[in-house]
Amino acid sequence: MLVNSVAYCNGKKIADVPQGEIHAYLDRKDCLLWMAVRDPEEHELAELEREFELHPLAAEDARHGHQRPKFEEYGETLFIVMHMIEPDGDDLRVGEVNIFVERDYVLSVRSRSERNFQDVRARCEREPELLRHGSGYIMYALMDAVVDRYFPILDAIETQLENIEDRIFAGTSPRANIESLYSIKQKLMTLKHAVAPMLEAVSKLFGGRVPHVCTGLGEYFRDVYDHLARLNQTIDAIREMVTTAISVNLSMITLQEQDVTKKLAACAALVAVPTMIAGIYGMNFDFMPELKWKWGYPVTLGVMTVIDIYLFFRFRKAKWL
Amino acid sequence: MLVNSVAYCNGKKIADVPQGEIHAYLDRKDCLLWMAVRDPEEHELAELEREFELHPLAAEDARHGHQRPKFEEYGETLFIVMHMIEPDGDDLRVGEVNIFVERDYVLSVRSRSERNFQDVRARCEREPELLRHGSGYIMYALMDAVVDRYFPILDAIETQLENIEDRIFAGTSPRANIESLYSIKQKLMTLKHAVAPMLEAVSKLFGGRVPHVCTGLGEYFRDVYDHLARLNQTIDAIREMVTTAISVNLSMITLQEQDVTKKLAACAALVAVPTMIAGIYGMNFDFMPELKWKWGYPVTLGVMTVIDIYLFFRFRKAKWL
Amino acid sequence: MLVNSVAYCNGKKIADVPQGEIHAYLDRKDCLLWMAVRDPEEHELAELEREFELHPLAAEDARHGHQRPKFEEYGETLFIVMHMIEPDGDDLRVGEVNIFVERDYVLSVRSRSERNFQDVRARCEREPELLRHGSGYIMYALMDAVVDRYFPILDAIETQLENIEDRIFAGTSPRANIESLYSIKQKLMTLKHAVAPMLEAVSKLFGGRVPHVCTGLGEYFRDVYDHLARLNQTIDAIREMVTTAISVNLSMITLQEQDVTKKLAACAALVAVPTMIAGIYGMNFDFMPELKWKWGYPVTLGVMTVIDIYLFFRFRKAKWL
Amino acid sequence: MLVNSVAYCNGKKIADVPQGEIHAYLDRKDCLLWMAVRDPEEHELAELEREFELHPLAAEDARHGHQRPKFEEYGETLFIVMHMIEPDGDDLRVGEVNIFVERDYVLSVRSRSERNFQDVRARCEREPELLRHGSGYIMYALMDAVVDRYFPILDAIETQLENIEDRIFAGTSPRANIESLYSIKQKLMTLKHAVAPMLEAVSKLFGGRVPHVCTGLGEYFRDVYDHLARLNQTIDAIREMVTTAISVNLSMITLQEQDVTKKLAACAALVAVPTMIAGIYGMNFDFMPELKWKWGYPVTLGVMTVIDIYLFFRFRKAKWL
Amino acid sequence: MLVNSVAYCNGKKIADVPQGEIHAYLDRKDCLLWMAVRDPEEHELAELEREFELHPLAAEDARHGHQRPKFEEYGETLFIVMHMIEPDGDDLRVGEVNIFVERDYVLSVRSRSERNFQDVRARCEREPELLRHGSGYIMYALMDAVVDRYFPILDAIETQLENIEDRIFAGTSPRANIESLYSIKQKLMTLKHAVAPMLEAVSKLFGGRVPHVCTGLGEYFRDVYDHLARLNQTIDAIREMVTTAISVNLSMITLQEQDVTKKLAACAALVAVPTMIAGIYGMNFDFMPELKWKWGYPVTLGVMTVIDIYLFFRFRKAKWL
Repeated sequence: MLVNSVAYCNGKKIADVPQGEIHAYLDRKDCLLWMAVRDPEEHELAELEREFELHPLAAEDARHGHQRPKFEEYGETLFIVMHMIEPDGDDLRVGEVNIFVERDYVLSVRSRSERNFQDVRARCEREPELLRHGSGYIMYALMDAVVDRYFPILDAIETQLENIEDRIFAGTSPRANIESLYSIKQKLMTLKHAVAPMLEAVSKLFGGRVPHVCTGLGEYFRDVYDHLARLNQTIDAIREMVTTAISVNLSMITLQEQDVTKKLAACAALVAVPTMIAGIYGMNFDFMPELKWKWGYPVTLGVMTVIDIYLFFRFRKAKWL
Repeated sequence: MLVNSVAYCNGKKIADVPQGEIHAYLDRKDCLLWMAVRDPEEHELAELEREFELHPLAAEDARHGHQRPKFEEYGETLFIVMHMIEPDGDDLRVGEVNIFVERDYVLSVRSRSERNFQDVRARCEREPELLRHGSGYIMYALMDAVVDRYFPILDAIETQLENIEDRIFAGTSPRANIESLYSIKQKLMTLKHAVAPMLEAVSKLFGGRVPHVCTGLGEYFRDVYDHLARLNQTIDAIREMVTTAISVNLSMITLQEQDVTKKLAACAALVAVPTMIAGIYGMNFDFMPELKWKWGYPVTLGVMTVIDIYLFFRFRKAKWL
Repeated sequence: MLVNSVAYCNGKKIADVPQGEIHAYLDRKDCLLWMAVRDPEEHELAELEREFELHPLAAEDARHGHQRPKFEEYGETLFIVMHMIEPDGDDLRVGEVNIFVERDYVLSVRSRSERNFQDVRARCEREPELLRHGSGYIMYALMDAVVDRYFPILDAIETQLENIEDRIFAGTSPRANIESLYSIKQKLMTLKHAVAPMLEAVSKLFGGRVPHVCTGLGEYFRDVYDHLARLNQTIDAIREMVTTAISVNLSMITLQEQDVTKKLAACAALVAVPTMIAGIYGMNFDFMPELKWKWGYPVTLGVMTVIDIYLFFRFRKAKWL
Repeated sequence: MLVNSVAYCNGKKIADVPQGEIHAYLDRKDCLLWMAVRDPEEHELAELEREFELHPLAAEDARHGHQRPKFEEYGETLFIVMHMIEPDGDDLRVGEVNIFVERDYVLSVRSRSERNFQDVRARCEREPELLRHGSGYIMYALMDAVVDRYFPILDAIETQLENIEDRIFAGTSPRANIESLYSIKQKLMTLKHAVAPMLEAVSKLFGGRVPHVCTGLGEYFRDVYDHLARLNQTIDAIREMVTTAISVNLSMITLQEQDVTKKLAACAALVAVPTMIAGIYGMNFDFMPELKWKWGYPVTLGVMTVIDIYLFFRFRKAKWL
Repeated sequence: MLVNSVAYCNGKKIADVPQGEIHAYLDRKDCLLWMAVRDPEEHELAELEREFELHPLAAEDARHGHQRPKFEEYGETLFIVMHMIEPDGDDLRVGEVNIFVERDYVLSVRSRSERNFQDVRARCEREPELLRHGSGYIMYALMDAVVDRYFPILDAIETQLENIEDRIFAGTSPRANIESLYSIKQKLMTLKHAVAPMLEAVSKLFGGRVPHVCTGLGEYFRDVYDHLARLNQTIDAIREMVTTAISVNLSMITLQEQDVTKKLAACAALVAVPTMIAGIYGMNFDFMPELKWKWGYPVTLGVMTVIDIYLFFRFRKAKWL
């Protein structure tokens, strides 16, 4: 589905371009076409492939989706794949955006993702002095937007981990903690898959030899790289903490089991000792002087109670109860 | 066993080549021989070695099998070893394909594998404009086919892991879960052995200096590389999740043990307390007024029941029962 | 908030520069302006950005904070981000300092941090022969100060770990140990985040091609690098020991549980055996000669005691009690 | 102890060389001396050092033994150290071979190893066209032989692991499994120590600049490298599986403990419930109508039996028994 | 404290140099001063700094100590820091040696270490033909000595680990094993800190561009590197085995707990069953024919005994007792 398609000249919007006139604008030397497509159908992709003369392998990648993030050069055309990650209930939904960039056009093909890039386009149009840098700047703006959207997701994961940490040390809901830790780990893997390959890809866009359209934008791409590096580092750190949290949680569970065993032992003692005494006075010997004694029964009950009170406080003191 | 052997000229099939005429076609400058052999016997290999003038070390590798995937150059001849992985009941069967490529022939020797490359040949013959690229393109097509066949296998493993995750958190069949996780790990190692060395090998086929027959096909081999990189990344991710799942499973098992201990403790209490009370009234003291009381017996039974009901609900509330 | 702003000429302080005269001093070729700002408000930053002609991306980083440590060149301007880590009760507070360096000025912007750099300035002013090296030397002095402040924090963590080790092997407070180990791990991650990226950044300041203002100061920056390398190595070592300590602690907990189980078993035996004997003599058989025997009761009690004493010592010897 | 010493000319054996005539042969330009020494005594080594003019540091390495595998150049002399690993009961014995290679001689010094290199010499002598390559080829042949002997050892370890896996999942002999897994780990470390440094060493013998005697033999050394890479990969894979197996085994042990606890609980219940009932009818109340009832005793016994049968089947169904 | 200070000319000792004459000897072109200082006081260091014109940063490092091992060039002066590790009861004491090397002097400053370098000096003086190489050779000799002293320490650790392994599988003293494993891990970290940075440092002393005084000594420094590589590899291997041993030990402890539980269950059964039977015959039913039977009591005792013997042998067979 075509989202929109606009021609810019010298950083300023000159026209909305209907699909039929794309070719006319691509032929003009002086203008830049920025086209956004969403969840395209097979025939739409085929048409784009023909009109923009996309390389068959790149077009196939866009068609199949589920690529890993990457940056590739097909002759003059740059081809960028990025993952778009959006919260989806308790899980993460992984969408994808494929961007084709040449000197005179930027074509973005977005799939399986709710959020569009209208904000990016709006900001670019507000800053014509930057948009004048050409297609490379649009490419930067799109990448920057995708990367910036990873941060709140990672923050949410971090918060989730902090909540679990509190619960682990409070000793509550160990089962739910395990499940949440596992789920955090899965989300981190999803984010890692989005970030790590892109980090490598973006590093080719500044510094040494860079593609032609990126010339002069090195500081911008380095900024994207820097954000990715920060994300990557944070992901790795949380990942390590999750592993630690899992093993810490196991220790806490084992400690709790110990508590249960201690409680069990203490309660057993409280019951077993009176039972033993009662058993003794239940013996049928003919000569058991206590049995004849008038205060035998109450004294025995008293002894049982005293022993149990004593044991109770000892166990309490030893924190078994 | 010879599967088939066809000569192509300018991307078009010109003849099926019987084994005896191989030499004639190898001598012609203008045509390309594509020969496929399967589970060859010793003498067949010896004949191929002589006819194609294969390097003794490469021929020995093909003879012995069980090589790691690799790409080697013996003078003008390229020698590629890839693993063919096919599901075999609950396990994976590892076959092997050895490919010898020179400017004017491609010889593939397949071992211990059910699936052939007829689909690759058919597709190549349908696209003569690509087949015209020569033996390098056939080499690419074979590699691409082998790599693409890894994806469904990895998907199956991923699905298997997801099923186990559900079972882990549902707390069912811990023993089977452990066994399955171990088996997944083994399969991942098998896949890793197929993918990782090939990733390294393929990286030599595009970019800088590439073998002569691969010239102009850089984007194709980069595509294969990209698929391998994706496989590799996914394998590593699943591997990490399996490790996490194993330790999470241990935590769940320990939690279950705790549940068993709690249940045991609760049941013991329900039985032990009435036993203690009964013991007390089983004592033989002469002066135990309750024993004379008419309602002593039913009241005692009642007290036992009330205590047990109370305990039962307390345990229920504490989730011990 | 402006902390202070001083102009130096030939290594000697010549004037305190009020904010309004900054421009005048920046225009003079012969002097060096060193300005320190703390927790600046939005409008202050905007003014600084304009006056020092900072690159928008760098200024934005300073504005948003929460960057990872880094070193970037924007044309002639060097931009350095470092984390300032200060103890905050049981936790660590992570502040940040952004330093802009050009040939004729050093501007440091400090956020969320208590400690200032007055000591650095004082030391620099005491050593005019070094300050004469120019802005590069001030940059070194600031970096050196930040890095040196990491050491006592790491030492405190090391001491904390040693205390926990003692407690682990003494078997006391396992729950608190786990929590402390987790907290140490978190602090190490915080330090690692401060140190590791800076290690990489500083390595660009000596050796090969270095920014112009750093020329001739290679040995100083190598010294900073060396300190960072030492910190990094120690962090990694403590991190590994924490992981080991967590698993060692789990072993100790499991051992303690075993002790509890043994104690439970021993106590159960001490009670159960007399109970069994009492039960036997509580049977109502008509012909039980012992029951008639005058010494039956005391002898039975004696036997119970003897058995329990025997068991007690056996358990004691086996360390079950 | 001198094993043997033979002079070759143009790939053909020309003479057995007694120790005294070594010098004569070393002086001849046209022939190649291949000498093998085993567990040499101090004075023998000193003599070799003098006669072959070995570098003191290399000679010292040969004298002390227990080197890590390596490849070093001392001027024109190549010095190779390899580990020879042989099964020794349940353990592995690590021997060592030091090889000195120059254009006109190969001297191998073997220590602490049973197997000799007679088969290598025999094969070389059968293939004079290869032996004609000179000392580099003998060096290759020796390295190839040493490396090939690692494979059966690794295969044996793999088989051992498979047996343990079966036992782990069958739940038998957990103690022996742990011990075997640990021992496998140790053997893998031994192999790793032999293989990993050699992998690095051999990589210098083909490809770029290679020592003079290795020229033209690149494909042979690449073959050795390839075998080492395969060994290395397999060692790493088994190592990872051993780690997994250890943690899987722990899970199985914990599960078994749970089974024991369940059994214990079930049996306790089967005994405790009749005991409680018996206790109740052992009470001495005057008014307990059941006691007077003629069928009281058999009915009570019957109730006990029925309850136990019911419990038994419930436990059986829940797999507690 | 000055240990000694000797001037050499052409590899031969020419004079003991008192501190006051150092300058005179440093001015002579033809001789080499080798000075050894131990635990110097502040003022001694200051004097050395002035006399040898040491770089302030290097002097500061020597003053503060607790550096990581490193090799640095300050102009013509080489500065080497190495850790000296000596056994100190059950722990390791980490001393430090700082070596300053120039063409005409070697100054070693040793701190917190018992062992001196008299043996190195003695050996050097015995081999004037090597000492003639100049200060580079002394530097090598010192490094070689420090590195060689690591080996016995690592051997002791290895032996300690082997002893623990035996105890783990014998099932004795699990608590002490854990503590020892932890302590081994700590010692390995100490050694690693000494070895790993030095490995990196020494690699700059042979091969490509080397400092002037090291020219022609490449094979010697490669030998040191080789020793360090062996140490490093062994440290890593032991470290991995320690990790494995910790987890294996946990498995053994869990198995032992299981044994305790089994024993507990078996003993409980041996006592509970007779108790139950006694309880039954303690019931007060009027009609219990067995009670009247003359042999009732002995037969009941007999049945109890038979059941217990039967149970005992079943438990024994199942290895629960």
